[in-house]
Amino acid sequence: MTSLAENERESDEFDLIDAMIAALDDTTQGAGVVAGPGDDAAVLDLPPGHQLVVSTDTLIAGRHYPAGAAADVIGYRSMAAATSDLAAMGATPAWAMVSLTVARLTAAWAQRYAQGVAAAARAFGLAVVGGNVARGSENVTVTVHGHVPTARAMLRSGAKPGHVVYVTGTLGGARLALQDNGLSRCSLAELDADSPRRRYWKPEPRLAVGIGLRALASAAIDLSDGLSSDLEHLCRASGIACDVELARLPVYPGGDPMDAAAAGDDYELAFTAPPDSEHGIRALARETGVAITPIATARTGRPAAVHWFRDGLAIDVSPGYRHF
Amino acid sequence: MTSLAENERESDEFDLIDAMIAALDDTTQGAGVVAGPGDDAAVLDLPPGHQLVVSTDTLIAGRHYPAGAAADVIGYRSMAAATSDLAAMGATPAWAMVSLTVARLTAAWAQRYAQGVAAAARAFGLAVVGGNVARGSENVTVTVHGHVPTARAMLRSGAKPGHVVYVTGTLGGARLALQDNGLSRCSLAELDADSPRRRYWKPEPRLAVGIGLRALASAAIDLSDGLSSDLEHLCRASGIACDVELARLPVYPGGDPMDAAAAGDDYELAFTAPPDSEHGIRALARETGVAITPIATARTGRPAAVHWFRDGLAIDVSPGYRHF
Repeated sequence: MTSLAENERESDEFDLIDAMIAALDDTTQGAGVVAGPGDDAAVLDLPPGHQLVVSTDTLIAGRHYPAGAAADVIGYRSMAAATSDLAAMGATPAWAMVSLTVARLTAAWAQRYAQGVAAAARAFGLAVVGGNVARGSENVTVTVHGHVPTARAMLRSGAKPGHVVYVTGTLGGARLALQDNGLSRCSLAELDADSPRRRYWKPEPRLAVGIGLRALASAAIDLSDGLSSDLEHLCRASGIACDVELARLPVYPGGDPMDAAAAGDDYELAFTAPPDSEHGIRALARETGVAITPIATARTGRPAAVHWFRDGLAIDVSPGYRHF
Repeated sequence: MTSLAENERESDEFDLIDAMIAALDDTTQGAGVVAGPGDDAAVLDLPPGHQLVVSTDTLIAGRHYPAGAAADVIGYRSMAAATSDLAAMGATPAWAMVSLTVARLTAAWAQRYAQGVAAAARAFGLAVVGGNVARGSENVTVTVHGHVPTARAMLRSGAKPGHVVYVTGTLGGARLALQDNGLSRCSLAELDADSPRRRYWKPEPRLAVGIGLRALASAAIDLSDGLSSDLEHLCRASGIACDVELARLPVYPGGDPMDAAAAGDDYELAFTAPPDSEHGIRALARETGVAITPIATARTGRPAAVHWFRDGLAIDVSPGYRHF
């Protein structure tokens, strides 16, 4: 499969990887990293008494984000999307592997991409311990590793009838960004103030909330595809139903309640907790500075499902993002 | 980014994932699997006293394998390529995450792909604990996890002057398969007998050799890009040089010695060991049934590099596979 043209570029590949590793800077090191990038595999120390938590997420240009977007926001968002799954498990982030496929990788693009990855790694407490670089249609796959004290991971399957259903933060903000023609021209440095663009490119995995919920929640899931779709997964895994009134959703300012229900990309959490956790959940919201809103109460239901209402009338909510 | 057309296919995605999980059968379970596919992340138990070893590898249709190839051989080879990195570290395989991106995923393709993944998982002792499915240009990214007793992982950097350089198995067999016009039409069931096609689609990560080498070798690397390229990495990481005579390479029957030196895809190991390991290495070859051939002796050299010779005369060997 090797052509002469590829061989002529030989020096590029490893130079580019070196440039990326340089841009990753101190983020290739971190707690538990025995051997990071540069060998056949990373070697890592899991803290004693903890279980490993692993998730992987793929973002594709033109499908999961606008084609032609700046490399740093792609890097940041790809890390955030994967890390949000660790938040949903109540895991503490530890290590990331980054697989980058691009049609034409220049040193400038590679460095800027790595800067975005590094910014996310610092924000979330991840070390970037390895990855892969290949030429092809643009595709970013990030695998993240975290840990939880043994038997303390939150699953989707623990909700019971009578438990309260909550969501973190606000919903529908990232959807607003998709109406913005300048979305593909944003760079990471412009995203300091809260805005739909920031919600889209720089989502904040609810890590502190997730860790706090280990002692409080019965089930959790992250909202990547959209509340209507993801809460349905939680209900099916737990064998419960719930009735959600649109007016109870915490909608991003200026956002549409239907988008808050159906649109993806917010990377908030939905979770359930027994009623006696209410005080603890309020305290967790205060400690973390993240709004936590009760939106429904789980009930028995066959089939397990989410039922949607507007002003008390049953409505259809279009499902969230679908990959096929 | 969600279009109406995508929403109309909603029921497909999760049905396809269910079909793949069904085809994976018992391979979604295994030692240490607390929670496998189906939640936001996998939850895994690392054996006490062991370190985690992680590697990721991406294969792209038309670049790393022929476009239009059968789904089962793609699944098998993608698992083998990633697992070969665990062999090079001396790690015992444990868990895989599989990220599949394809332009058009049918239930038949998905099941056949998962059958190939499952066959490899059984052969290598991996549980498939999660992954991702997305629509886009064909790209398969596998992240594999294994473990080694603490501080026993083999790195590329431990070779010293005077150590002997070895390679496992034979080289150049996979390259022969690329001259075969029927390569893209092979299916896994046809690959029982040794053949270049089998070498290409069903490589055998040298796991048992790698585990045995932990007590014998000073450095190791897997041969994915080709000996000339990969041995160069080992020499640079260790700060050594070596002189390799083409006639000493174990060439696949009918293969070209230059291809054995330069071509990739064989997934054998190159490693170094002090001279007093020779007896143990011979015993390991007997126990595992894998040929192990000494090809050179490491020496001091600045810069660290591999020098190639044919019949005692210095020659250039084109580098192995390059991704850019």
